[in-house]
Amino acid sequence: MSRNNDCWIMTAQCPGRLGTVDAVTAFLRENDCYITEQNSFDDRESGRFFIRTEFRPPSGFDSQAFEARFAPRAANFEMSFGLTAPGHRVPVVIMVSRTDHCLNDLLYRYRTGQLPVEVCAVISNHRDLEPLVAWHGLPYHHLPVSADTRPQQEAQVWRIIEETGAELVILARYMQVLSDGMCRRLAGKAINIHHSLLPGFKGAKPYHQAWAKGVKLVGATAHYINEELDEGPIIAQSVEPVTHTDYPEDLIEKGRDIERVTLARAVSWHVERRVFLYENRTVVFPR
Amino acid sequence: MSRNNDCWIMTAQCPGRLGTVDAVTAFLRENDCYITEQNSFDDRESGRFFIRTEFRPPSGFDSQAFEARFAPRAANFEMSFGLTAPGHRVPVVIMVSRTDHCLNDLLYRYRTGQLPVEVCAVISNHRDLEPLVAWHGLPYHHLPVSADTRPQQEAQVWRIIEETGAELVILARYMQVLSDGMCRRLAGKAINIHHSLLPGFKGAKPYHQAWAKGVKLVGATAHYINEELDEGPIIAQSVEPVTHTDYPEDLIEKGRDIERVTLARAVSWHVERRVFLYENRTVVFPR
Amino acid sequence: MSRNNDCWIMTAQCPGRLGTVDAVTAFLRENDCYITEQNSFDDRESGRFFIRTEFRPPSGFDSQAFEARFAPRAANFEMSFGLTAPGHRVPVVIMVSRTDHCLNDLLYRYRTGQLPVEVCAVISNHRDLEPLVAWHGLPYHHLPVSADTRPQQEAQVWRIIEETGAELVILARYMQVLSDGMCRRLAGKAINIHHSLLPGFKGAKPYHQAWAKGVKLVGATAHYINEELDEGPIIAQSVEPVTHTDYPEDLIEKGRDIERVTLARAVSWHVERRVFLYENRTVVFPR
Amino acid sequence: MSRNNDCWIMTAQCPGRLGTVDAVTAFLRENDCYITEQNSFDDRESGRFFIRTEFRPPSGFDSQAFEARFAPRAANFEMSFGLTAPGHRVPVVIMVSRTDHCLNDLLYRYRTGQLPVEVCAVISNHRDLEPLVAWHGLPYHHLPVSADTRPQQEAQVWRIIEETGAELVILARYMQVLSDGMCRRLAGKAINIHHSLLPGFKGAKPYHQAWAKGVKLVGATAHYINEELDEGPIIAQSVEPVTHTDYPEDLIEKGRDIERVTLARAVSWHVERRVFLYENRTVVFPR
Repeated sequence: MSRNNDCWIMTAQCPGRLGTVDAVTAFLRENDCYITEQNSFDDRESGRFFIRTEFRPPSGFDSQAFEARFAPRAANFEMSFGLTAPGHRVPVVIMVSRTDHCLNDLLYRYRTGQLPVEVCAVISNHRDLEPLVAWHGLPYHHLPVSADTRPQQEAQVWRIIEETGAELVILARYMQVLSDGMCRRLAGKAINIHHSLLPGFKGAKPYHQAWAKGVKLVGATAHYINEELDEGPIIAQSVEPVTHTDYPEDLIEKGRDIERVTLARAVSWHVERRVFLYENRTVVFPR
Repeated sequence: MSRNNDCWIMTAQCPGRLGTVDAVTAFLRENDCYITEQNSFDDRESGRFFIRTEFRPPSGFDSQAFEARFAPRAANFEMSFGLTAPGHRVPVVIMVSRTDHCLNDLLYRYRTGQLPVEVCAVISNHRDLEPLVAWHGLPYHHLPVSADTRPQQEAQVWRIIEETGAELVILARYMQVLSDGMCRRLAGKAINIHHSLLPGFKGAKPYHQAWAKGVKLVGATAHYINEELDEGPIIAQSVEPVTHTDYPEDLIEKGRDIERVTLARAVSWHVERRVFLYENRTVVFPR
Repeated sequence: MSRNNDCWIMTAQCPGRLGTVDAVTAFLRENDCYITEQNSFDDRESGRFFIRTEFRPPSGFDSQAFEARFAPRAANFEMSFGLTAPGHRVPVVIMVSRTDHCLNDLLYRYRTGQLPVEVCAVISNHRDLEPLVAWHGLPYHHLPVSADTRPQQEAQVWRIIEETGAELVILARYMQVLSDGMCRRLAGKAINIHHSLLPGFKGAKPYHQAWAKGVKLVGATAHYINEELDEGPIIAQSVEPVTHTDYPEDLIEKGRDIERVTLARAVSWHVERRVFLYENRTVVFPR
Repeated sequence: MSRNNDCWIMTAQCPGRLGTVDAVTAFLRENDCYITEQNSFDDRESGRFFIRTEFRPPSGFDSQAFEARFAPRAANFEMSFGLTAPGHRVPVVIMVSRTDHCLNDLLYRYRTGQLPVEVCAVISNHRDLEPLVAWHGLPYHHLPVSADTRPQQEAQVWRIIEETGAELVILARYMQVLSDGMCRRLAGKAINIHHSLLPGFKGAKPYHQAWAKGVKLVGATAHYINEELDEGPIIAQSVEPVTHTDYPEDLIEKGRDIERVTLARAVSWHVERRVFLYENRTVVFPR
C-alpha cells in the first residue's frame, strides 16, 4: 500500500438521514484533520449510509481522544465507526488445505509489503504446506479434522484466532465445511473464495459440469461467509475466457489463477477499509 | 469482414479417426487450392473432429464440381462439410419485441458491411421498431402473438423464414416463449441472447435478484437454441463490472450494452463459419 | 441515466486546504439537502481539491438562490462550482467527417435517453452522414473546408456553437486539423477520440505501423482538446486484443469498435459531471 | 500444462506455397500419427507459412527416425521444423536484479508444474534474491556487473547458458543493459518484459511521465529481444485500469502485477511452442 502513507482512515455507517456526511466532515475540520479522499454512499433501498475518509491529522494527533470526542456525535446518528492508523497491518489467520495457489500469492504480497496484513498463523488440516509457511517464518498449525472431531478442531481454530487477536480469517482454499456455529462466529470476519461459473453449477465437480455445458468464461467470487459458507455477501468477482480446447482440468487450472487474484483483491480492499457490509450486500469504495 | 476477401471457407466435422485432416488438406492441394489459414480440433471426450479452412482457389474455380468431387471422400469419413464463397452474405431473419439495443447494433453492422449478413426480414410482435427497420429499407412483419394464437403466429414466422431462405434466425431480445415444436425446428439455426449473472438467477426479475445479492459482475450469453430456449449450446459470453452504486435499473442498462456486443460477436462468428455445434457444446475457432 | 433521477449534482474545485469538504457539506445540511453520494479527492502533487456530490433537495428548492447563497463561501476558498438539475440534458454539437461509427453510437444513446445530452447540431465537412442525422430529426450543417477556407469555416462552426448554446463539442472522428485559435477556444470544452496503440505510433497510417510491429492490443483514447488537438488531458482509454491474423484493415475495424465505446463513455462521464479538468490531467469519479 | 498429456507437438515454418499444410499432414497420416489439434497461418504480407500440430503417435514411436524421414520433405519446402515430446520441460535460465515479482511468479509456476520448464540457473547482478532461489533448490549465480566489467560478466553469463544447455533466457526484470553482441546472440532466444504505457513514454521514470499525463491504463509488453533490447518482436501485452488516485508509486505497483502475468503468459506460450518468430513479428497460436 503506497498512496498517502501518512493518512488515517475513518469509516462509518448508520441509518441514512440528513446531516450524516456533515457529522463526519465537520468533526474532522474542527480537529484540524485534512481530508485527502472521501467517498460516501446512501443506499436508497436499505436506507443505509456508508462513508470512508482518508485524512492527514495534525501533529500530536491522539486517536483515542479523537474517538472519545466523536463517540457522542456518532451515537446521535446510531453510527458505528472505526479508525485505522497509517501503516497499520491487519492481523489475519489464513486457513488452507493442500492447494497453495492462494496461499502462495497472499504470502508473497505479505512478504513484499504490498498487502498490509500481519499473518499471525496459518492453519491447515494437512501437513503439505508447512515448508512454504516455515520459509516465511510464520507459525503453522496442523489441525486435522474429520466429521467426528470437527467440534474439537474448530475449538482449537477458534482459540488460535482469539489468542492471536486476528480480526480477519482468510479461507484460502480451505476445503472443509465449517459448522453452523463456526460460520455464525465468523460471519463478516472471514473471507472465502470459490469458483463462480456461468451459468451457476451446484454440487460436485462444478468445473466438469461447466465443461460439459461448454462455458466460455470461468470465474471466481470472493465473499464474506455468513450462515451459508458459500453464499455470503460478495466482495469481488472476476472471470477469464476459456475455449473448447480447455478440458475440465484446464478450467480448474485457469480457475486457480482467477481465484488467487480475486482473493488477494478482496483481502486488500478489506484491510484498506474499502468494504462495508450490511445485511446481505457490500458497499466497496474502489481503490 | 476485411481479412482475405478472396478466400473461400471450408468447414467439416466427423467422427475422429486417423487421416481426417489429411482428407481435407490433400484434396485441397490436389485441386490447387492454397490454404491461408486452418484450424482443426479433435475433442477427446466426444471423439469428434472439427476443421475450418480458408483457402484461395485457382482461377476458374467451380465450387459445385469441387463439392461433387469431395463428396465420396467425405462419405468415407462420415464427414459433413460446407463451402462458403468470399463475400457471401448469410441470409438472416431477426426477431425482436420492443427493445432495440441489439437490433440497432446488428443493423448498423449490416449497413456498414461489417457483418456479412443479408437481413431478409425483421419480425416483431410489436409495432415499435418499424421506423428503425424502415429507415434501413428492410421488410418489417408485425406479427402479434398471445398464448392462444401462438401456433398460427409461429406458422407465419416459419413461412417467412422459409420463403426468404434465411439460414439463421437471430432472437435479438424477442421476449416471447417459443413453442417446443418451434424450438426443435430452429435448434442450431437460431441464436438467442440473454443475461447471465453470477451466481445464476432463475425466474422473474433476474437483475433485481442479482442486485439483492450484491453481484459485482453482470454478463450476457449468446447461444444456439435447442429444445430449451434459454439453455442451448453457448457461443459467446461476456461480463462487465458493476458496483454498489448500480441499482437494478442500472444493471439492466449495463446488461444491454453487454448483450448487444455479445450477440453481435456470436452472429459474426457464426456467419464466418467459426462455430461448430455438436450435441450440447460448441467449438469456436477464434477470429 | 437511471440511478437517482431526483438528485441534483454539485461539483466544485479549489486549492486544497483545511475545511474544503466541510464548506460544501455543511452548506448542504444547512439547506436541508440530503447527500446520496459524494466523492472528493485532494491531489497531493498539484495541491488541488475536487468534489462531486449528488443530493436530494427539499421541496420548493430554488437553485438560483442556493447558488447565490453559496457564492461567498466558495469565494473564501477560491472555489469554482456548478450545479446540475436532475434530468438536465447537456447541449452538445457533434462534428464528424465521413465515418459514422462514433456518430451512430452517440445518436443511438441520445435517442434512447441513455445519454443525457441535447444534440443541437451535427456539423460535417462532408454530406455523407446527412441521412442518418436527418432520420433522427436533427439539424445537419455541411461546412466543407480546405486549408484556404479554414478561418471562415471555423467561424461558421463557432457561430453554430454559440447560437445553439452548446457547452460541449464532440469530435466524433472529425478528420480535420483545427486551427490553434479554435483549439484554444475549445480547450476543455471539446472531447476528441483517437487511436492509441502500444507502443505509440506517430505520423501517417498508425495502424499499419502497429501491424508491422506486431502489436497484440489496439486501443482508443478519449480526451479533452487543448492547444494540441491530439494530446489533451485523457478522460478514458480502452484496449482490445488483436492477433497475427489481423491485418491493418482489421486493426482499423477493431479500433472503430473501441473508439465508439470509449468516446461514449467519456461523453457520458462528462455530462454526468464526473470529470474534473486541472492543468494537464483529469480527475474522474467513476460511475 | 494439462491438456493432452500424451501428445507431441510439431511446429514448422517456411515460405508459403501450395502444399505446405499437406506436406505435414500427409506425413503424419503415413506415420500413423493422430492429429488432435492443428493451426496454420499463411501471412499474406511476408508470404510466410506457419503451422503447429499436436498429435498422438503410434506406440513405439521413434522421434529421431521420424525427423530423419521428414527432413527431405522439409527441405523441398525450405521448411524448418521442430518436435517436442509430451512432458518435455524446456531448460531455461532466469536473469534478475533486485525485484522479485516476476521471479516469484515464475518459480511458483515451475514448482507446481504449471509451467513446463526446467530452471537450470538464476543469474543476478545482486545477492538479494538468493534466499528465494535457494528455497526452491536451484543454483544462484551472483554476477555483479559494471560498465567496465560488462564483457567479462556477459562471458560468464554466456558460459552458464551454454553449460546448462538452456534454450531460453528469461529476463525477469534484469535491470542491466546488454551489450549489442549479447543482444545478437540472444535474439529470439530471450524474452524480456517491460512496462508499456499509452501513449508511449521513453526515457527515465516512465511511470512518472505517465502519471503526469494522466493515463487511465498501464500495461506491460513481453517480447523477444533482438538487436534492440526493449523493442523486439511482441509476444504478449496486457493492461490494467488506473485512476487519478494512483500516484506514480501506485502505477509502478500495479505495473508489477501486470508484468508478472504478462511475462508468465509469454513464457508459457513459448514453451508450448505457440510462438513463431519471423523478422520483426510473431505469430501466436493461442491456447
